[in-house]
Amino acid sequence: LEKMEIEAVPFTFDGKPGAIPPGPFDLAFSLGGDGTVLYAARAMAPLGVPILPINLGTLGFIAAVHPEEWNSVFEHLLRGSVPLSQRLMLEAWVERDGKSVATASCLNDVVVSSSGIAKIIRLHVKGEKIRLGNYRSDGLIAATPTGSTAYSVAAGGPIVDPEMEAVIISPICPFSLSNRPMVVPADEAIIVEVEAEQRSEVLLTMDGQIVEPLEPGDTVRISRAPFKAQLIASDREVFYRVLHSKLNWSGGPDA
Amino acid sequence: LEKMEIEAVPFTFDGKPGAIPPGPFDLAFSLGGDGTVLYAARAMAPLGVPILPINLGTLGFIAAVHPEEWNSVFEHLLRGSVPLSQRLMLEAWVERDGKSVATASCLNDVVVSSSGIAKIIRLHVKGEKIRLGNYRSDGLIAATPTGSTAYSVAAGGPIVDPEMEAVIISPICPFSLSNRPMVVPADEAIIVEVEAEQRSEVLLTMDGQIVEPLEPGDTVRISRAPFKAQLIASDREVFYRVLHSKLNWSGGPDA
Amino acid sequence: LEKMEIEAVPFTFDGKPGAIPPGPFDLAFSLGGDGTVLYAARAMAPLGVPILPINLGTLGFIAAVHPEEWNSVFEHLLRGSVPLSQRLMLEAWVERDGKSVATASCLNDVVVSSSGIAKIIRLHVKGEKIRLGNYRSDGLIAATPTGSTAYSVAAGGPIVDPEMEAVIISPICPFSLSNRPMVVPADEAIIVEVEAEQRSEVLLTMDGQIVEPLEPGDTVRISRAPFKAQLIASDREVFYRVLHSKLNWSGGPDA
Amino acid sequence: LEKMEIEAVPFTFDGKPGAIPPGPFDLAFSLGGDGTVLYAARAMAPLGVPILPINLGTLGFIAAVHPEEWNSVFEHLLRGSVPLSQRLMLEAWVERDGKSVATASCLNDVVVSSSGIAKIIRLHVKGEKIRLGNYRSDGLIAATPTGSTAYSVAAGGPIVDPEMEAVIISPICPFSLSNRPMVVPADEAIIVEVEAEQRSEVLLTMDGQIVEPLEPGDTVRISRAPFKAQLIASDREVFYRVLHSKLNWSGGPDA
Repeated sequence: LEKMEIEAVPFTFDGKPGAIPPGPFDLAFSLGGDGTVLYAARAMAPLGVPILPINLGTLGFIAAVHPEEWNSVFEHLLRGSVPLSQRLMLEAWVERDGKSVATASCLNDVVVSSSGIAKIIRLHVKGEKIRLGNYRSDGLIAATPTGSTAYSVAAGGPIVDPEMEAVIISPICPFSLSNRPMVVPADEAIIVEVEAEQRSEVLLTMDGQIVEPLEPGDTVRISRAPFKAQLIASDREVFYRVLHSKLNWSGGPDA
Repeated sequence: LEKMEIEAVPFTFDGKPGAIPPGPFDLAFSLGGDGTVLYAARAMAPLGVPILPINLGTLGFIAAVHPEEWNSVFEHLLRGSVPLSQRLMLEAWVERDGKSVATASCLNDVVVSSSGIAKIIRLHVKGEKIRLGNYRSDGLIAATPTGSTAYSVAAGGPIVDPEMEAVIISPICPFSLSNRPMVVPADEAIIVEVEAEQRSEVLLTMDGQIVEPLEPGDTVRISRAPFKAQLIASDREVFYRVLHSKLNWSGGPDA
Repeated sequence: LEKMEIEAVPFTFDGKPGAIPPGPFDLAFSLGGDGTVLYAARAMAPLGVPILPINLGTLGFIAAVHPEEWNSVFEHLLRGSVPLSQRLMLEAWVERDGKSVATASCLNDVVVSSSGIAKIIRLHVKGEKIRLGNYRSDGLIAATPTGSTAYSVAAGGPIVDPEMEAVIISPICPFSLSNRPMVVPADEAIIVEVEAEQRSEVLLTMDGQIVEPLEPGDTVRISRAPFKAQLIASDREVFYRVLHSKLNWSGGPDA
Repeated sequence: LEKMEIEAVPFTFDGKPGAIPPGPFDLAFSLGGDGTVLYAARAMAPLGVPILPINLGTLGFIAAVHPEEWNSVFEHLLRGSVPLSQRLMLEAWVERDGKSVATASCLNDVVVSSSGIAKIIRLHVKGEKIRLGNYRSDGLIAATPTGSTAYSVAAGGPIVDPEMEAVIISPICPFSLSNRPMVVPADEAIIVEVEAEQRSEVLLTMDGQIVEPLEPGDTVRISRAPFKAQLIASDREVFYRVLHSKLNWSGGPDA
């Protein structure tokens, strides 16, 4: 379901990962699940094009418009009465030997993790003004609020309101009793240094879709993207509703 | 150490809880631990008076100036070269039978919890536009970022950068497998309804210092205070440093 | 629902907390919820009397026989074809100034916690041969496997198979990043020392039903009871089934 | 440090992974870290040979004898005054198309996880008599008590007394809010079914050292090994001491 085959604009656009459509567009329809919206956001957010995420599979956090509803949403949209949910996106720059070798943006998360057999990797993490320290773990997730319900929550991170300007830093299986997920402001760049000594391959993954191998000594600089994803009919109220229905959020047995 | 006996302005002020000093003042010295700074913040923040928190006991998160350093900090301050750390404070309003019966502000946290024998209490929690749902738990903590390293972290909450505009909602021992700490924007008021049926006394506690009994049917409205605590020489860098030394923050065994 | 109104064997017994029925009995019926079974277990286990827990309210972990089913279970029982689930119980002895001042047994848990306003209490915990160390927390839970799905799981403890011979030690809101629930063998007595310096009242609570005030300097010795609770038609399979239905145990969104 | 260079018994044995020494031996020396003891245990436990684990690197949980101490331990041993710590080991059998294709034993843990890019895998887990259900996660750890301080604790599992007869089942980053680590008796075989539909490669890893690729439809049967690891001078007291020094176990800031 969640394959990347789907992308549409007025009627004729058929997107594939990597092929960034030229535009100009007024609106992008995302037909698929949350994964499709992630792809659409990376393609459309730099162009300032809002996305109408129609959900073709099971209920999604960001693909929240049911196929039967889209017509009605679209008409409201034409009349200008549908608010846009502005969502923080992140950029990651990889620096190697003093040069930038790769960069990309994402709506959910930037993950630095080991590949192959689960093995501890060694990262040093800091902000521009703050020191977080060494991480000995299977990896590290830097998630947007939109991504707080994805991989980050599985790693033990908090749920963060989707329209906040914050980044959640969650270690993956830290070899420490005293590590905790951390929430920092979106305007603090996070610098992840891949230490020189590693016993496992290290990968950079963005939105679970873009994968770059990293080398010992690399630095990944994660900061707010200069653009936002603009989601139609997928606002905060929807987010909290999906939290209950999809993740079984519950305060207690009779809740 | 952490008693409320301490409060000073130019040289002669001796504060007690409840007695709000009239002012005007240019500066308040807090001589004690974190608890003393909490009291000072509640007294001084509404007057716009910055606080120089001198730490007389063990290292604190917000009482971070060592007694030997204060002279030097004070001189820098007179020369205008010490930045103020602006910290979010919260207000809580208790409504009973349609009337406001109590209100107070705090720098760390608002806690609604059971008193006496640990017993589950029943709360319904929502924002102005969002629905969080029912909580069956020993209670609920609404913490500022400054308070994220206090009771909230003990209840499993994330560490939040101290200068963010966010509120952390952490359940205390929720009788549910699927509850999680949540981070919401500071401009979203949080409404905690004490449900009609309770098997335990319910208390409102602010900063661990102000205590109000609540009644079934009460509503506690928690929102951002119209003023901020202004802390001298207690900025974000200090916060992260104390995190390592006081809470043993560690990413791994050789970190 | 969960009041202590215990109905029991041959037809005429009406139990109240504190009044231990003299016996001899062949069987005790527990009519109520899990709380009623806890009371029945404390009364009947020392006499070696098995309990048939008929559930009059919402589904319980140990009160698992539906009112419509009890006849059928009872007939199977008379024919000898219903297995007994043997459940570990705990005893707690309070020592003060070298004397035992109180003792009781329980099926779910022994809790040492603060009363009144949530305040950190100071405990030192060890086994007979092992050292666990100091706890700065709202309290400590020593739970049986049967009790692992009650207060202990709310405090973050693991689920433990109900027929194991183990004790789960879970701190309640520990003021530490590096504390974790711990599982120790049932034949290791656990010694909880209430340290001399306390800023809160300290209470001993057993099964959430028996409450004893503790004093600074007291020692609580928690060990396996010399008898077991014998539950009819409430075996391990039932336990795991209830885990799914009552606590919404789930491995994932389409599970 | 943690390489597999195993030195052993009467003076002349030089072990390599895979080469199981023929014996008979009275004693095996493990010179290295915890990883070396894991290898030694897999080689020596089936032969009933006890292991003296001399720690050449940083302090280990099971490699606890300092190089300066080994002489003294060895002399005590000759006089018969050193107790053996008996440790549960696990076996894993892989069944494919009705045939056993692989089997091995381990002292720490059996891990079924995704390889390559972190992706959710789909497992169905049950015991012989109990149903645990579906897991949607990065993987699953079945750990012995000895292994409870290794990968399992990083995934959020409890600390379990090292001489218990228990298996800890910890999900790795479960895509669910309502999953928890679980402790089951060692005599309950655990059956992990790799579901037919997978979007990632699935690997079986034992003690972090033995790796087998799994295929969709495979079943991994995890049960207690018919032999135990016998560790010299590495008993429960040592375990709890190392917990404090290596993992910074702490109950609170002044603990």
